[in-house]
Amino acid sequence: MLAVVLEQKHVLRLREIALAEEPGPHDVRIRIHTVGVCGSDVHYYRHGAIGPFVVREPLVLGHEAAGTVVEVGRAVPHLRVGDRVCMEPGIPDAGSRAARLGRYNLDPAVRFWATPPVHGCLRPTVVHPAAFTFRLPDNVSFAEGAMVEPLAVGMHAVNKARVRPGDVAVVIGAGPIGLLTALAALAGGCSRIFVSDVVPERLSLAAGLGPVTPVDVRHENLAGVVRQATDGWGADHVFEASGHGAALSDALAALAPGGAVTLIGMPGAPVPIDVVAAQVKEARIETVFRYAHMFPRALALMEIGALNVRSLITDRFPFGDSSAAFDYAASPKPATVKIQIELP
Amino acid sequence: MLAVVLEQKHVLRLREIALAEEPGPHDVRIRIHTVGVCGSDVHYYRHGAIGPFVVREPLVLGHEAAGTVVEVGRAVPHLRVGDRVCMEPGIPDAGSRAARLGRYNLDPAVRFWATPPVHGCLRPTVVHPAAFTFRLPDNVSFAEGAMVEPLAVGMHAVNKARVRPGDVAVVIGAGPIGLLTALAALAGGCSRIFVSDVVPERLSLAAGLGPVTPVDVRHENLAGVVRQATDGWGADHVFEASGHGAALSDALAALAPGGAVTLIGMPGAPVPIDVVAAQVKEARIETVFRYAHMFPRALALMEIGALNVRSLITDRFPFGDSSAAFDYAASPKPATVKIQIELP
Amino acid sequence: MLAVVLEQKHVLRLREIALAEEPGPHDVRIRIHTVGVCGSDVHYYRHGAIGPFVVREPLVLGHEAAGTVVEVGRAVPHLRVGDRVCMEPGIPDAGSRAARLGRYNLDPAVRFWATPPVHGCLRPTVVHPAAFTFRLPDNVSFAEGAMVEPLAVGMHAVNKARVRPGDVAVVIGAGPIGLLTALAALAGGCSRIFVSDVVPERLSLAAGLGPVTPVDVRHENLAGVVRQATDGWGADHVFEASGHGAALSDALAALAPGGAVTLIGMPGAPVPIDVVAAQVKEARIETVFRYAHMFPRALALMEIGALNVRSLITDRFPFGDSSAAFDYAASPKPATVKIQIELP
Amino acid sequence: MLAVVLEQKHVLRLREIALAEEPGPHDVRIRIHTVGVCGSDVHYYRHGAIGPFVVREPLVLGHEAAGTVVEVGRAVPHLRVGDRVCMEPGIPDAGSRAARLGRYNLDPAVRFWATPPVHGCLRPTVVHPAAFTFRLPDNVSFAEGAMVEPLAVGMHAVNKARVRPGDVAVVIGAGPIGLLTALAALAGGCSRIFVSDVVPERLSLAAGLGPVTPVDVRHENLAGVVRQATDGWGADHVFEASGHGAALSDALAALAPGGAVTLIGMPGAPVPIDVVAAQVKEARIETVFRYAHMFPRALALMEIGALNVRSLITDRFPFGDSSAAFDYAASPKPATVKIQIELP
Repeated sequence: MLAVVLEQKHVLRLREIALAEEPGPHDVRIRIHTVGVCGSDVHYYRHGAIGPFVVREPLVLGHEAAGTVVEVGRAVPHLRVGDRVCMEPGIPDAGSRAARLGRYNLDPAVRFWATPPVHGCLRPTVVHPAAFTFRLPDNVSFAEGAMVEPLAVGMHAVNKARVRPGDVAVVIGAGPIGLLTALAALAGGCSRIFVSDVVPERLSLAAGLGPVTPVDVRHENLAGVVRQATDGWGADHVFEASGHGAALSDALAALAPGGAVTLIGMPGAPVPIDVVAAQVKEARIETVFRYAHMFPRALALMEIGALNVRSLITDRFPFGDSSAAFDYAASPKPATVKIQIELP
Repeated sequence: MLAVVLEQKHVLRLREIALAEEPGPHDVRIRIHTVGVCGSDVHYYRHGAIGPFVVREPLVLGHEAAGTVVEVGRAVPHLRVGDRVCMEPGIPDAGSRAARLGRYNLDPAVRFWATPPVHGCLRPTVVHPAAFTFRLPDNVSFAEGAMVEPLAVGMHAVNKARVRPGDVAVVIGAGPIGLLTALAALAGGCSRIFVSDVVPERLSLAAGLGPVTPVDVRHENLAGVVRQATDGWGADHVFEASGHGAALSDALAALAPGGAVTLIGMPGAPVPIDVVAAQVKEARIETVFRYAHMFPRALALMEIGALNVRSLITDRFPFGDSSAAFDYAASPKPATVKIQIELP
Repeated sequence: MLAVVLEQKHVLRLREIALAEEPGPHDVRIRIHTVGVCGSDVHYYRHGAIGPFVVREPLVLGHEAAGTVVEVGRAVPHLRVGDRVCMEPGIPDAGSRAARLGRYNLDPAVRFWATPPVHGCLRPTVVHPAAFTFRLPDNVSFAEGAMVEPLAVGMHAVNKARVRPGDVAVVIGAGPIGLLTALAALAGGCSRIFVSDVVPERLSLAAGLGPVTPVDVRHENLAGVVRQATDGWGADHVFEASGHGAALSDALAALAPGGAVTLIGMPGAPVPIDVVAAQVKEARIETVFRYAHMFPRALALMEIGALNVRSLITDRFPFGDSSAAFDYAASPKPATVKIQIELP
Repeated sequence: MLAVVLEQKHVLRLREIALAEEPGPHDVRIRIHTVGVCGSDVHYYRHGAIGPFVVREPLVLGHEAAGTVVEVGRAVPHLRVGDRVCMEPGIPDAGSRAARLGRYNLDPAVRFWATPPVHGCLRPTVVHPAAFTFRLPDNVSFAEGAMVEPLAVGMHAVNKARVRPGDVAVVIGAGPIGLLTALAALAGGCSRIFVSDVVPERLSLAAGLGPVTPVDVRHENLAGVVRQATDGWGADHVFEASGHGAALSDALAALAPGGAVTLIGMPGAPVPIDVVAAQVKEARIETVFRYAHMFPRALALMEIGALNVRSLITDRFPFGDSSAAFDYAASPKPATVKIQIELP
C-alpha cells in the first residue's frame, strides 16, 4: 500500500510498502482519514532516532489517527463496519506485570505505532485490536478524532495530578500538548489557568480557550504573576509541557504549598532541580508517560462540548503532500499548533 | 434588632431580639442582603428539633447568607467596608483535633448558625470571623452568593467522591442539594449525569443544567437506564441526595465496579444496605457532613461561569414576609427549588 | 482422580471423578499437599448454594491450597518442577474491563475454584495458570501456604482501608478472616487493635497475636472500650469480619472522625445502617470482594516473619477423613479457627 | 539559665542566658533531660547559617528533646506535673492557610527551635504549647523520647510515600534520618529494605535493623542489586536520605514502574534529574519538609515495640561537655549515628 515512509534521517517518501495484515478475531481493519503530525514524527524525520529508538529500517510514520471501520473480526462485539473511530496507538502485552496492575502504558514491551520497528498509520488502512479502537461521537469530526491521542496525554496528566474543582493551574508551554493539557485541566474543574510561552501567537490562542491568563515569559515573571493573582499562595498545579530545563525552577516558584508539578515535556538531557525549594512546599512531582484508559474519557467530554479542540488544528495537508507537511512541521509558522494530513 | 425568630415549634415571628455583638480584631460586621431557606430551617419550624438539637429558647433562623461588609476588625487583612461577601455559617474551634487535621467540619464543638443554641442570620446584621467570610466576584449577585452555602455541600461531595474528568455520575434526588451536586459534578468533569426524582418539574429543571438525563423513577428503573447507557458497566459515581432509605439499593444497582456512592441526604432512620451487593462491586461509600474549604472553590467556578445556580433560585420573599416564606417552604409548589428572603 | 465431591446438599463423598486437564503453555500442574476448609465450602455442604451459585452438578470443593509443581508449560519462565507453591483460586478474563483496570477480582466472568460450575482443589492434582501460582519462601510450610488465600482477603482489606503506620484499628469478629485481618493490620503498621467476638477461646487466641485488646461483646461495649482507650476519639479503622448485621452500628460508634469502616463479612440479608451516624464522622465505608495482587505481598511478609499464621491452624484431617473434616467444620469446637486437610 | 549558646560561627559556649518564659494557659514548662544533636545544629555551629537562616544573635541550639513536665497551664487537660514527655519543636500559626488545611509544617510563619531567631532547647527548662507536647509510654526512655523528632521525619516520609504492606523499599543514606526512615518503613509494612551507604559501620548497623540488605555503593551498583532481587521489576519506594546529588539517578534506576521516590535529604545545590527516566516509569516524586501529626504515631509504635531506635543512639555526652559533643559531632567516628546530650 501507499504509505509515508521514513527511509532514513531526512529522507521521507510517499511510496508503496508491503504491509500484509489480516485482522484476527479481536481486530478491526480501519480506513484512515486523518493523521496528526506529532513532534516525535518530526523528530524521527530530522534526527533518525529518539533516544534508544533508532530508525534502522524504513518506517511508516504517524500515530494520531481517525478513520472508518471497514472490516470487523468475528469476536468483536462493539464495533461495526462504517463506524467512525480513533485508535490508541500503543498495544501492550495484556499479561505483563504493568498491564495486570492496570498501568499498561508502563509495559516495556508495548508496541507503539511509528516507534521502530513498529510501523505507523500514515497509510490507507491499518489492522488494529478492537479493544484499542474507539467510536467517535456524531459531533466529533475525523480531524477532532485524530486529536484524541495528544489530548489523552493532557487528560492523563490532569488525572495523575488529581485536579479538584476550583483548582488553579499553570501550564508551561503553549505547544499542542500544553494547550490540550490546559483544555483538559479546565474540563477537570480548574477555575483559572496561567499558560506561559514565548510565542505571542500561541499565547493568543491559549487566551481564547477559556479562563486562561497568558504569560509571555520573555517579559513577565511567571511565578510573580501567579503569586500576585493568588494572594501569594501560588498554583495548586503546574503542568510542565515545554521540555525546557529551566521550566522546573519556574514551576516550583509558582507552586502553592502542597501543590503538584506534573512533568509532561521530555527534556533531551537531565535538568537541575532545587530539591529544597520543592521540599519547603512539599511539592508532589508526578511524571507521565503517554496515557492509559483516557480515550473514552476524552471522547465523552468532547461529545458534550466540554472539550473543544478545533481551534488547535491550524494546518492541514493532503496525503499527497505529506513530505511538504513534514518539511513545514520542521519549521512552522509561529501560529501553528497542530498539523494534520488528510487521506483521500 | 428585627429578626426572624422561631419561638417554638410552628411559631415564627419577625420581631425585635437583643443581639449585642461587637466585632473582635479578626471579625467583620456584615449587613445581610439575602438569606436562603434551607430544609433544616423548615424542619426546625415544623418539628422544633433536628435529632439531638432541640429549640428550647427563641432561635433566629437562617444560615445561607450574602451581604455587605460594614465594619472590619483591626487585624483583618483581606476585607474592606463595602465588600460584597458570603459567609460560611459554621465556626470550629481551631485547636480541636479535627480542625488541626484540616477537617474542621468534623469538630463536634463547631458553632453553626441556626443550630440551637446558636442564632442564625435572618436579621439585618451579623458579626462573623473574617476567616469564614468570602468576597463575591463581581459577576456573582447576592442571590447567587447566598447559594454558595448549599452549593458547598455539593462541591464537598464531589471532592470526597474524587470525580475524575470523563466520569459518569448519578444524582438521586432533584432537590436543591441534588441539583447543586449535579452542577458541581459537571464542573468537576463529569461527562454525563443521570438525575432521578419523582417530580416532573424538578426533572425538567435538571435537564436544563447541561448533559443531564432526567429519570422519573415512578416510571423508569434507574439502574436499568444507567446500565443500558453505559454498556452494562454502570456509573462511576452515585450521589444520594434524597435521604430516602430505598435509594441506597438503587445506588448500588446503578454503580459500576469500583465506583463510589456518596451519601449526602440524611435519612431520618437507619436504612437497609445490601452489603454483598456493594462488595461484589467493591463499592466505596463516602459520607459527607456539610463541607470544609469549599467556599473559595465554589466562588472561583461561579466567577468563570463554570457553575451557574441562577435557575435554581425559584422563589423570593421580602424580609417582611418571612413567615409566609416559611409557610410556603413547608408546602411548596412542585417547581420550587430554592426559596430566598431578601432584606431591605 | 480421587476427589472430595459434593454430590448435592449434605452429601459429600471422597470418590473418583474424571477431570482430564492438560496444562497449556502458560500453565503448571500442581500436586496438592494441603487444603484449608473455608466457610464457603461448608456453606455449600450445608445449603447446596451461596446466593445465585447453586450446586446442580457434583462439585469438587476446596480453594485454599498449597502443593508442589510437577509439570511446567513451555512458556512459563518463573516456575520449575519441584517448586513449593500456593495458588490464587480465581482466574479472570484478562481482557475484561475490570481486569484491564487492574481490578481483576471484580470481573464478573472470573472462574473461581469450588464455585459452581468450577471444580475446586480437594484432589491430588490441579492444572493452573502459572501467573496465579506463587512460590513459597523456604520458611513457609504447606500448611501456612494454604493460609495465604484467606490471608489475602485480610491483606486486601487493609490495603483498601489505606492503613497508615500508627493507626488504631478494630476488628469485629475473631473467626479466621477476622484474625487474619488483624495480623495483616499489624503488619501494615497498626499500633493497637481491638478484636471483638463472643467466643472466649477465639478472643484468647486474638490476644496472643500481638498488641491486641480482646473485647467480649457479651459483657463489654465495644465502642465504649475503644473510645475510652483513645481519649474519646475512636479508631482510625474498623474491619467488619463477622457478617453480623448489628456490627455496623458498633463499627460506626467505635470509629474516629474521618475514619474508615471496611466491610469484609458477608451478611445473608440487608443490614440497617445509620447514615447520619456515619455522616457526622464522614465515615468512609470500603467494601472488599476477595483480593487482587495480594499473594506476593502476603508471602513476602510471611518470609520475614512479620506475619505468622501458625497459631490459627487449629485442626488437621487426613484426606481420607475429608467427610469427617466437613462434619467437624459444620459444628466445630469453640477454639477452632482454621481446619485443613492434608493429602498423602 | 545555663544554656548551650552558639555565639557565632565556631563559637559555642555553655553559659548563662536570660530566657524569661512564663507558661500561658495552654502551655507547660518542661525540665529537659535529653537532647539529640541534629545535623542542622552542627551545620549552624560550623557555618553560622542554613540557607536564609543566619545566626545574627546568640542562639540556644537543640531541638530533639525529652523531659519532664514541671508546670502545667490552667487550660491544659491532658498533661500533669511529672509526666515524661517529648516535644514537637515547630509551632505554627493555627490560623495560617497551611495549618487550616491540616499541613501546619508548611506554614512559613512556623517558629522552630534553634532556627534563628528562635532559641532551642539545650537548657534546663523550656515553656512549650501543651498541644505539641506528648507523653512518653512507660517503656520509652528519655533517650528514646529524644529520638522521636528525627524519627517523625522518617514516619512522615513513609506516610507521604503511601507505603503498603509487602512493599519493597530502598533507603539511600544510612545516617540517622536514613536509618530511622528504614525503621519507619518496616513498621509501615515494607517486607524488604535495601539501605545504601559508603560507610561499612553504618551498613552493619542497618543490617541489624530487620530484613535489610546493606548495599555498599562503593563496590556495588544499587539499582543492579535491587533489580536482580526483584526479578527486574525494581523497588516500590526509594527514600533519598543522603542529600547527595548523584543519588537521584540511582533512585530512578532502582525504582519499579509506578513507584515513588521520596526526597528527604536536602542537597546544598540543585541536582540534575533525568526527567525521561522518571517518566518511562511514571515515577511519583514526593518531597517532605519536617513532619505533621507524626509524634503520636511514632510513640504508639515504639510502645508496642514495632519501632526500636535504641541501637541508633551511639554516643552520649553530659550537658557540661556540650562543646565537646559538638566538636565530636563535627567529625565523628564512622560508627556514630546519633549523639545525645544528657542534662543533669
